[in-house]
Amino acid sequence: MVEQRTEAGADLGNLYIVLIHYPVQNRKGEQVGSAVTNLDLHDLARAGRTFGVRAVYVVTPYEDQVALVNNLISHWTQGAGSKVNPDRKEALNLLKVKKSWEESLEDICRETGYASPVKIVTSARVCENTVSIQDLQASLGRNIPHVLAFGTAWGLSKEFMDACDMTLAPIRGAGKYNHLPVRSAVSIYLDRLNGCR
Amino acid sequence: MVEQRTEAGADLGNLYIVLIHYPVQNRKGEQVGSAVTNLDLHDLARAGRTFGVRAVYVVTPYEDQVALVNNLISHWTQGAGSKVNPDRKEALNLLKVKKSWEESLEDICRETGYASPVKIVTSARVCENTVSIQDLQASLGRNIPHVLAFGTAWGLSKEFMDACDMTLAPIRGAGKYNHLPVRSAVSIYLDRLNGCR
Repeated sequence: MVEQRTEAGADLGNLYIVLIHYPVQNRKGEQVGSAVTNLDLHDLARAGRTFGVRAVYVVTPYEDQVALVNNLISHWTQGAGSKVNPDRKEALNLLKVKKSWEESLEDICRETGYASPVKIVTSARVCENTVSIQDLQASLGRNIPHVLAFGTAWGLSKEFMDACDMTLAPIRGAGKYNHLPVRSAVSIYLDRLNGCR
Repeated sequence: MVEQRTEAGADLGNLYIVLIHYPVQNRKGEQVGSAVTNLDLHDLARAGRTFGVRAVYVVTPYEDQVALVNNLISHWTQGAGSKVNPDRKEALNLLKVKKSWEESLEDICRETGYASPVKIVTSARVCENTVSIQDLQASLGRNIPHVLAFGTAWGLSKEFMDACDMTLAPIRGAGKYNHLPVRSAVSIYLDRLNGCR
């Protein structure tokens, strides 16, 4: 049996993913910077490529982490990795590293010519005034750039979230447990937005 | 806006996940054993706990890898990790390591009292006679144990797949690119089976 598109799906060609390592919260709710996780880069790039997003930004202000990410991207897109695994190259070509959320937004504006993309944030916590997948699909249909931000560590701060245009409803599972890895959350949201079952 | 269950979802309490490191294929299609990846264990356990699966088996025949997995499980379920991060403990409590696919099936039979669970396999490759998410949801509704196998490296062999009862249709993205990480694939399949949007 072949899978069919059973609900309205969205073209994700105007969607950018941003993975934020600063500012995020630690377990006490304090503002910190987190370390880049190698597999986050691979998994977000591969999921992004699968579902057709425009680019995946990795945000970290730390020079050594920027250099690490650039080394990883270079290995898989131009170095030995690109010859061994062309499929991985195709995915990691989506990755860009920026020193701040604002720099990633500026890059999107420069690329698209829009003054500001629609800024959407996600959280595992229950928030007020969240939008559904269907709401975001409808917004993506307007054919303007959208940027979907994910936090690492214990998530993005309330201030960061309040400054975005939309908060996407959290992924509900079978009960109250809400500790999905960011790698899982990105994959599930992209699959839901793509809408192909 | 609160997310709603917009399609028939399935209770995954009778579903077991098995992550197989041997026998799998390398890029040339040869039979090999792969190394255990730490984040696979965390991600499958966290996704499994989120969506309410019964257990997650890690299959490897290699003594050193079995010891490594047992050390990881022990750290997070009984050691220092269990005190620092009780949510992680709750997820990693789902993990069991077995030396073969057959040993994991025997364990499920012993636990459930059934002679054999329904064996389902997945593949990124297009296969004949695949079942849909809806078909598997219906089968899970029969309230008998089901086991869903995922391969690492370049996937499970044709012989392994032919010996299972069902092949679940591959995850389609926006195009032909079909190189999702196993961490993403497990997360997406569980979300689809859970059916809560």
